Amino acid sequence: MDKCGIREMIKDLARLDYKKMFGNDFFLTWEKSDDEIAATFTVADILRGLREQNISTRIFDSGLGISVFRDNSTRTRFSFSSACNMLGLEVQDLDEGKSQIAHGETVRETANMISFMADVIGIRDDMYIGKGNTYMHEVSDAVKQGFEEGVLEQRPTLVNLQCDIDHPTQTMADTLHLINHFGGVENLRGRKVAMTWAYSPSYGKPLSVPQGVIGLMSRFGMEVHLAHPEGYEIMPEVLEVAKRNAAESGGSFVQSNSMEEAFADADIVYPKSWAPFAAMQERTDLYGKGDWDGIDALEKRLLGQNKKHMDWECTEKLMQTTYNGSGLYMHCLPADISGVSCEHGEVEASVFDRYRAPQYKQASYKPYIIAAMMFLAKMKNPADMLQRLLENATPRVL
Amino acid sequence: MDKCGIREMIKDLARLDYKKMFGNDFFLTWEKSDDEIAATFTVADILRGLREQNISTRIFDSGLGISVFRDNSTRTRFSFSSACNMLGLEVQDLDEGKSQIAHGETVRETANMISFMADVIGIRDDMYIGKGNTYMHEVSDAVKQGFEEGVLEQRPTLVNLQCDIDHPTQTMADTLHLINHFGGVENLRGRKVAMTWAYSPSYGKPLSVPQGVIGLMSRFGMEVHLAHPEGYEIMPEVLEVAKRNAAESGGSFVQSNSMEEAFADADIVYPKSWAPFAAMQERTDLYGKGDWDGIDALEKRLLGQNKKHMDWECTEKLMQTTYNGSGLYMHCLPADISGVSCEHGEVEASVFDRYRAPQYKQASYKPYIIAAMMFLAKMKNPADMLQRLLENATPRVL
Amino acid sequence: MDKCGIREMIKDLARLDYKKMFGNDFFLTWEKSDDEIAATFTVADILRGLREQNISTRIFDSGLGISVFRDNSTRTRFSFSSACNMLGLEVQDLDEGKSQIAHGETVRETANMISFMADVIGIRDDMYIGKGNTYMHEVSDAVKQGFEEGVLEQRPTLVNLQCDIDHPTQTMADTLHLINHFGGVENLRGRKVAMTWAYSPSYGKPLSVPQGVIGLMSRFGMEVHLAHPEGYEIMPEVLEVAKRNAAESGGSFVQSNSMEEAFADADIVYPKSWAPFAAMQERTDLYGKGDWDGIDALEKRLLGQNKKHMDWECTEKLMQTTYNGSGLYMHCLPADISGVSCEHGEVEASVFDRYRAPQYKQASYKPYIIAAMMFLAKMKNPADMLQRLLENATPRVL
Repeated sequence: MDKCGIREMIKDLARLDYKKMFGNDFFLTWEKSDDEIAATFTVADILRGLREQNISTRIFDSGLGISVFRDNSTRTRFSFSSACNMLGLEVQDLDEGKSQIAHGETVRETANMISFMADVIGIRDDMYIGKGNTYMHEVSDAVKQGFEEGVLEQRPTLVNLQCDIDHPTQTMADTLHLINHFGGVENLRGRKVAMTWAYSPSYGKPLSVPQGVIGLMSRFGMEVHLAHPEGYEIMPEVLEVAKRNAAESGGSFVQSNSMEEAFADADIVYPKSWAPFAAMQERTDLYGKGDWDGIDALEKRLLGQNKKHMDWECTEKLMQTTYNGSGLYMHCLPADISGVSCEHGEVEASVFDRYRAPQYKQASYKPYIIAAMMFLAKMKNPADMLQRLLENATPRVL
Repeated sequence: MDKCGIREMIKDLARLDYKKMFGNDFFLTWEKSDDEIAATFTVADILRGLREQNISTRIFDSGLGISVFRDNSTRTRFSFSSACNMLGLEVQDLDEGKSQIAHGETVRETANMISFMADVIGIRDDMYIGKGNTYMHEVSDAVKQGFEEGVLEQRPTLVNLQCDIDHPTQTMADTLHLINHFGGVENLRGRKVAMTWAYSPSYGKPLSVPQGVIGLMSRFGMEVHLAHPEGYEIMPEVLEVAKRNAAESGGSFVQSNSMEEAFADADIVYPKSWAPFAAMQERTDLYGKGDWDGIDALEKRLLGQNKKHMDWECTEKLMQTTYNGSGLYMHCLPADISGVSCEHGEVEASVFDRYRAPQYKQASYKPYIIAAMMFLAKMKNPADMLQRLLENATPRVL
Repeated sequence: MDKCGIREMIKDLARLDYKKMFGNDFFLTWEKSDDEIAATFTVADILRGLREQNISTRIFDSGLGISVFRDNSTRTRFSFSSACNMLGLEVQDLDEGKSQIAHGETVRETANMISFMADVIGIRDDMYIGKGNTYMHEVSDAVKQGFEEGVLEQRPTLVNLQCDIDHPTQTMADTLHLINHFGGVENLRGRKVAMTWAYSPSYGKPLSVPQGVIGLMSRFGMEVHLAHPEGYEIMPEVLEVAKRNAAESGGSFVQSNSMEEAFADADIVYPKSWAPFAAMQERTDLYGKGDWDGIDALEKRLLGQNKKHMDWECTEKLMQTTYNGSGLYMHCLPADISGVSCEHGEVEASVFDRYRAPQYKQASYKPYIIAAMMFLAKMKNPADMLQRLLENATPRVL
């Protein structure tokens, strides 16, 4: 994108209503208005455009971005770091192992203690149903109160880097990839996307991706098809979100227990493993009780249940049934690739390989989506500020 | 604080004599003159004021702040990061687990190897009596020599982030909180502060906080009351410091074995657990000999001894006996709160809750205190430089 | 070095041909032309000169330097951080323990996922023969492809922070130390350097230092003497490199099994332990098979073999036999010092102590060498850019 293109996008941005994002958090995509979602995509594209033009996007002279990863992470960790860095924030990771938190300190206390100079807090907490999103709200409430009481000089904005309900930075990056791939958000209308379960030899993969995908992609007039074997149901609330979105956007939301039905004539397929919602609730309860034997038994049961559905694999044969035999394969990565990372997995190696470049491109939007979320939360006049960055044109690399 | 207020404080600063702080370390508060202590408070307040006005305080274009935490830490770690970041330094943590130090390398060598581009080194080493402060001096001497020999381009300044003797960044933050709470350092004169032991189910908490508090707060004409059960004596040298300070400042220093006496009519109470100095010496010796059975036995003995003093708790009833029933409760955090983080602890939950906001405010001074220590050590003309920052008024956030 | 000196060095730099370094990686010194090696030394000296003059060397407004340490490290880790920081990059460490890589993701994928905003990637991977350098090439190829496919906005440059073959940032720092110590690269001609094995109670130390030293120092017309006990042979390919270099540079390359011969009249001695190449190949194979008993047996055998050569120690007596009894002792650190870090080691304590300052100085060149490698890879017109930095003279510390 050249400077003219950037200028046009800034004009598009100025037409949207996203005032409420200023000073606010980003938890779930369906808590945001259509204009707010559109603004996030637009700012992400503009930031990418500026960077491509070697124009600095630093809006902070100093300041911290705090990350809290309660689960392993590579790409989200690096995406968050990249986003902070491109805006001028230094990342400070709260490694709970190295901290004194075990000592008996509350979420409210920790949240304030790490935030004295924090402009942004990014949290991944996707392990336990009913816990991750709740924890994020506790942190957000705590720092809001800290700010109001004069403890903190600024109110840190929270970015959900994956919770038990949604994975907004992932699904927004996925969707921005689709928007650019198909040449505009208007070109998503009428397209069929198959969000399907797929077999993996591991169990207990988070529900936040399938939930996030149907909760977001149903907003653009698409035909969203959710397919999984019986027993792999997701959170009922999110099904309601998808239904409502589809109705409002003029698209549709379909559920089935057939990978074949979902793939048939699909423009986009997103096959990936996840754990049954009910089983994840059970696991949360077992952890709560410290019932380790129960957890082991549950794991065995789930692995056994998974094994019955090893035919849920994204094969070349299935890909042939997609629209024109050339549907776009997507994955949030890393994928379980048959014969590569495991014996039997989510996808045949040749399918994965053929779609490697677009998948990496898909992933490459995440830092910009995170940066856009921060930008819209921290800047009073985002369009003006982007215009100013474009005009100043401070080089990123001399 | 507005710009006029900042300007006035810069004038106050210019009147003080703190020339010796340039290029120097910060180990113990009682090694610093009254003017040097006053300068540190003043610079901390100015830096906070500038940040509140969204004025950049970056004095470094690049450079590293090295942190060495030989004990777990959340708030000091984040305070150090924040201080470095607000001055423009990037934190590089020496994680001794990931380093080659076990390989048999000396303190002198490591100190130089991590300091090629270090402007500041912050160290927490509070575990063993007679070790932490000594280690810090070894590091400081090593990098001083490295600088003189042309190995290092600059002499890194050392900031004591807690040693076996003192915890200056904590107690300076505590005192700056008092100064601002009571409306000026002159308003501390005559006030009674109760630094008392309190029961905790854990043992072996560092002595550096009570020692640091009596060593510092005795300088402002206050009535400093140190109370603990028999057998919980602190380092005798620090008692001497407190006595001398009290005499010189026109205050008083009182010791007792009664929490009630200490709390009676106190303006400020600081009840917290610590381990007996003699026991900590014993532990250091046992570690030196690698006598793990001895350490286990010591731990058991100390926990047993603690249990005899479970009545040393900061209760609502005791708080009623403070001045006007409204003495200021302080803690360095995290506290052991009865019924919250443990069954019986240092403080009743309702007391802790009532003082939550002021305590968080108290903690919020630490990054500024650390930044002030660095600023005074690295800037030849601190007052001029602060004036220049104020006038340039580079925005921290665009 | 004053500004005039810097100006002269920039003129020297402009005369060299190093165009191919732009956009390129740094793997092995012998893959670089003489002019490219000279340019790296010159830029390192200029960057050090600028820093001494308190002139900022930031060429990046933002951007990440990714580090991947597959082995413990202190000085290389801090050197990489320092180099990144002085050029304006923030370090983001890929801690493989905290990442999802175990999950079954390929090198190609990880390389792209961590590089969205990476300008530089530094890798240490020296543990297994035939693996480290290969891994680095895989990473480099992956990000090159990612850049060409539009996944990455920029092509990250790879810097070899130690592989199984070479340790270029170490040996370049070592050599720059020699150049400055002896007053110019022309003064290295004819000097004798003894790269010798030395006894250490640990086994399995990397071969990359001795290999790197003979592969680099043979380029300057020096007499390079490699000495080790029988059975401690290094990679044959590197011997060929050293022979060829010596022939081309008008120096010589001599091998022997005698520490005495090597030390006799040497201007420089570099005694250090390493493991036999053949044994390291064996170890790699055993790891490949997961044969832990075999590895234990190998370790025992090697420790036994080492013990037969405890007389390979750098003693005062041996030092007396060097040129004028005052040869320069070098070590990449940390050294195994007899009576200090172990009972019997590589060097007598008094020798080590006498050469402590020059050794630390030697180590201090590493950050500048790394920064120079990055600078030459990222700047289209390095001489012009250095001139511009000199003229702008933005202060590093206000």
